[in-house]
Amino acid sequence: MTYTAEIIGVGTELLLGNIANTDAQDVSRALSEIGINVFFHTVVGDNPERVKQAVAIARRRANIIITTGGLGPTCDDLTKQTLAEAFGKKLIFNEDEAKTIREFFEQRLHNMEMTENNFQQAYLPEGCTIFHNGCGTAPGCAFEAEGTHVLMLPGPPSECRAMLASCAIPYLKALSDAEIHSHNIHIFGLGESAVEARLRDMMLEMENPTLAPYAKDSEVLLRLTAKAASKAEAETMMAPVLEKLRGILGDIIYGIDTDSLENTVVGLLKEKNKTLSTAESCTGGLLSKRVTDIAGASRVFFGGAVTYATQSKTAILGVDAGLIKEKGVASAEVAQQMAIMVRRRFGTDIGIGITGIAGPDTDESGLAPGTVFVALSAEDSLYCRSLSLSFERPRIRTAASSHALDMLRRYLTEKPI
Amino acid sequence: MTYTAEIIGVGTELLLGNIANTDAQDVSRALSEIGINVFFHTVVGDNPERVKQAVAIARRRANIIITTGGLGPTCDDLTKQTLAEAFGKKLIFNEDEAKTIREFFEQRLHNMEMTENNFQQAYLPEGCTIFHNGCGTAPGCAFEAEGTHVLMLPGPPSECRAMLASCAIPYLKALSDAEIHSHNIHIFGLGESAVEARLRDMMLEMENPTLAPYAKDSEVLLRLTAKAASKAEAETMMAPVLEKLRGILGDIIYGIDTDSLENTVVGLLKEKNKTLSTAESCTGGLLSKRVTDIAGASRVFFGGAVTYATQSKTAILGVDAGLIKEKGVASAEVAQQMAIMVRRRFGTDIGIGITGIAGPDTDESGLAPGTVFVALSAEDSLYCRSLSLSFERPRIRTAASSHALDMLRRYLTEKPI
Repeated sequence: MTYTAEIIGVGTELLLGNIANTDAQDVSRALSEIGINVFFHTVVGDNPERVKQAVAIARRRANIIITTGGLGPTCDDLTKQTLAEAFGKKLIFNEDEAKTIREFFEQRLHNMEMTENNFQQAYLPEGCTIFHNGCGTAPGCAFEAEGTHVLMLPGPPSECRAMLASCAIPYLKALSDAEIHSHNIHIFGLGESAVEARLRDMMLEMENPTLAPYAKDSEVLLRLTAKAASKAEAETMMAPVLEKLRGILGDIIYGIDTDSLENTVVGLLKEKNKTLSTAESCTGGLLSKRVTDIAGASRVFFGGAVTYATQSKTAILGVDAGLIKEKGVASAEVAQQMAIMVRRRFGTDIGIGITGIAGPDTDESGLAPGTVFVALSAEDSLYCRSLSLSFERPRIRTAASSHALDMLRRYLTEKPI
Repeated sequence: MTYTAEIIGVGTELLLGNIANTDAQDVSRALSEIGINVFFHTVVGDNPERVKQAVAIARRRANIIITTGGLGPTCDDLTKQTLAEAFGKKLIFNEDEAKTIREFFEQRLHNMEMTENNFQQAYLPEGCTIFHNGCGTAPGCAFEAEGTHVLMLPGPPSECRAMLASCAIPYLKALSDAEIHSHNIHIFGLGESAVEARLRDMMLEMENPTLAPYAKDSEVLLRLTAKAASKAEAETMMAPVLEKLRGILGDIIYGIDTDSLENTVVGLLKEKNKTLSTAESCTGGLLSKRVTDIAGASRVFFGGAVTYATQSKTAILGVDAGLIKEKGVASAEVAQQMAIMVRRRFGTDIGIGITGIAGPDTDESGLAPGTVFVALSAEDSLYCRSLSLSFERPRIRTAASSHALDMLRRYLTEKPI
């Protein structure tokens, strides 16, 4: 059985151009990884007649219809009703979902009111598979009718992505008899086109498994995917490719099937039993925010100082005011002293110092935006990277914090920094 | 004459999820601003048969078809041929365009080889309006046939945006006699369904202007849109609605046509000439990161302390260890002392203290994730919000930092905190 999917995005905000249809991108990428073809995307507004039209067209050219959006509690959220009607399914009140929704509200913000229309979300098509929503109240669902599989996912991208991974993809995988398995190879330290240039010959030769690069903030993700009868067979097919990639890319691979640089670093800190503190200027807390995004970081991260104003570097951390005057507040020397002093203040094994120009304007000293110094201080060692990042302000900040994490990873695994 | 447009994105990379369809967003936003309705977006791959199908469907439901993508020189770029054929137009070699393409290659792409298929781009539908491409080689075009206006724009987002602004919008404006104008009303402190419940009767009665709510992190955005002959007339139509919304929603509206809470707060700090510092525990630097996302925040934000480990609250900020022991590290009292002490340490007018449980696990004290205390200390005043947030870790952290920003906004505008 060959499966062809069509993705229908429901939401007037898409047609007004308020947001881009990133849900369609997320769903498409996930489907392509499990070998399901997508020939069309459609976007339609919060209008039952036009949603019906879009569904009528989609079911003629696909046997999987995936909708995103229109599952919320407001009166313009009509996907469930319209799809159920189109496929002759009744909507049935689901006690369990109603309970989940009620609990969600009872435990929620004191100033959030629960209204009767929240219970609309507890009506679901008869006989459907319920997709629980871990991030919001609107459940998704899937059913089969007249040879078509219909899956409904919520519109907010974080909810859509979570439900896609935890519910929709497992549901769709179960339809196919071939299994698809993949590994994510995470790279920091080389751009997407440079990675691709190194791997081009290898990639062109490959059919199964396949290898595809994705740019992702200041990182590159390589996705290696094999289609096989079993997980073991897929792993056997991928093992020599992984070996070859390690040979070509070396230590710019920071992890395989890990989540992120911050996750890798927090894991390494725990493993090596080392503690961390951070002193940030131009990144303004972004590094400590990323470290504490990881649950359980408190075991290894004691805290940080965001010394944004120049005088706070002296007042809070005790950085030498003379040094700042002599070398400039954005300098390798000041970054290093910030790292040394924050390590001392917080009593940690490692300290990070970041200072530089996030832009958009150049500073008094005439340094260009993107000039950033990242220092790492540890017992008996001190390192500093001098960066010239030709990006806009948000990417400069992200890249600077990623460099700090990369230095930490390299320090903790005894690789050249 | 009422115009309805449909946007057809052509490109297999969209169906594979390699990129999001931001062209459709850009085109939709531009059309909504000039009062042209968009009821559907379609995305189709580089496949002539399926492009033909998509066009056949689009021309039944729209009288303007705008394609993006598929205008380049490679063999899978087939939009022009397919659309010309669908509307019975011949492709004619255009000497001027051929000359422009040749010049582009000679002047700008010294190291690129020009191949014969680059001249494919000089074939254009007979009698069309040519849209010159200032950023690339592929020209776009527009023609009218059998009551339908067909516009073709290039796929690369920067080329599409440039041609949209300089060629397509002027072409379309000449067709329409109405303009669309809108206001974004930003709300913090009430959920989407609660906002909608308060406004439902009002919203159902409205036809022009219209009002639509969107959920956005822990905020709600209301979009008010009017269609009129001029901007002045649209504003006159929207003014009484804005007035009514202010009456119903009061001070939970934190801004109209503003960017974000952090932007609002940084603007207010500058306006009131007040300085800020932050002491964060469970948010781990997220608040200072959000404040410093705003360029120019250094004028009002001196810095912050991320006192993640309990002992760092005492060591770095000087919070009373006895108080922590007595009241618990996640308590209103500790949040308040953090705010007071950080304000003193950084010498700022206002200090924020945040402490609580971001989860996923409950802490030793038995407090549930989402129990967060946010305190604001200023000269002669001290406030604290006690929150019970039933979200996942990332949303707990975002909501806690948003509450801090909301308290700052309220303090700075003398509203109840």
